[in-house]
Amino acid sequence: MTIMLQVKDEAAVMNRMPEMPKAPGLYLEDIVVGDRFCGGAIAVTAETIKTFAREFDPQPFHTDEVAAKYSFFQGLAASGWHTAAMTMRLLAEFGPKVAGGLIGGSCEVAWPQPTRPGDVLHIECEILSVTPSRSKPERGSVLMRSETRNQRGEVLQVLTARLVVPRRN
Amino acid sequence: MTIMLQVKDEAAVMNRMPEMPKAPGLYLEDIVVGDRFCGGAIAVTAETIKTFAREFDPQPFHTDEVAAKYSFFQGLAASGWHTAAMTMRLLAEFGPKVAGGLIGGSCEVAWPQPTRPGDVLHIECEILSVTPSRSKPERGSVLMRSETRNQRGEVLQVLTARLVVPRRN
Repeated sequence: MTIMLQVKDEAAVMNRMPEMPKAPGLYLEDIVVGDRFCGGAIAVTAETIKTFAREFDPQPFHTDEVAAKYSFFQGLAASGWHTAAMTMRLLAEFGPKVAGGLIGGSCEVAWPQPTRPGDVLHIECEILSVTPSRSKPERGSVLMRSETRNQRGEVLQVLTARLVVPRRN
Repeated sequence: MTIMLQVKDEAAVMNRMPEMPKAPGLYLEDIVVGDRFCGGAIAVTAETIKTFAREFDPQPFHTDEVAAKYSFFQGLAASGWHTAAMTMRLLAEFGPKVAGGLIGGSCEVAWPQPTRPGDVLHIECEILSVTPSRSKPERGSVLMRSETRNQRGEVLQVLTARLVVPRRN
């Protein structure tokens, strides 16, 4: 009980307190190179593309079908950041259930082709590396590659993210 | 006029048609290493953080103040993808006015510290390199580093984006 109160007072993070009961989910020790996570079916429409773009990326090829036709994209295309945000939604649902949540410190993103109205997105992820931290014994990092594909299997985004993952011991 | 009709029929991209009148804005030849672009004042609130997160990153530390207090973030924090989306909004407004629009093919993103309620975001961008394409004479790529900072100057996101930029000639 003393520990509980202390934690509450300091708003300390459970995963940084080895004496605390562990949060449920996967720890660094549970994740193995080659582990795969797949799933999802987010339907993309002209309306969802334009709604996101009006708030975050109001360029004509994301907000207007006619202007988009005569742009680089030759038709309405989702903002890359919209594809990234939808991918995060899929990762939260179908990615690894890391203890304490899915927390990325940095990443690389590429958009080999645009996301279009009518696309239905899913993710295919693979763990590339699992590395204990040298300076922080309570955690490590996991490199995960995540492809966002449409219903035809076309790769719309490749995300390589470095996740912060707690260690069990 | 013949050319105009032809373009319309084929929905061809103006920037790929050297015989067409050029779209306004910056071309590869106009952009110089070291060019800087700054601006913006997007106010982040608990509500905007939670609204974005409920749709795209529904993890407790992005959607619930109390749960967030006992998480890795020790308080409500915006999804990194929310910070990225707000940064895109700032880039569209205050970044380089590239002819044909601001189009990124790939990027690296890091989030050195979380975006919090009360933060007011601006961007500070710098052009790192300007490279004509070897295979596509009508375009090139521009590497741009963009820091997203709050009102205290704290860096919340570092984005290094490779932009597709048309050539004038």
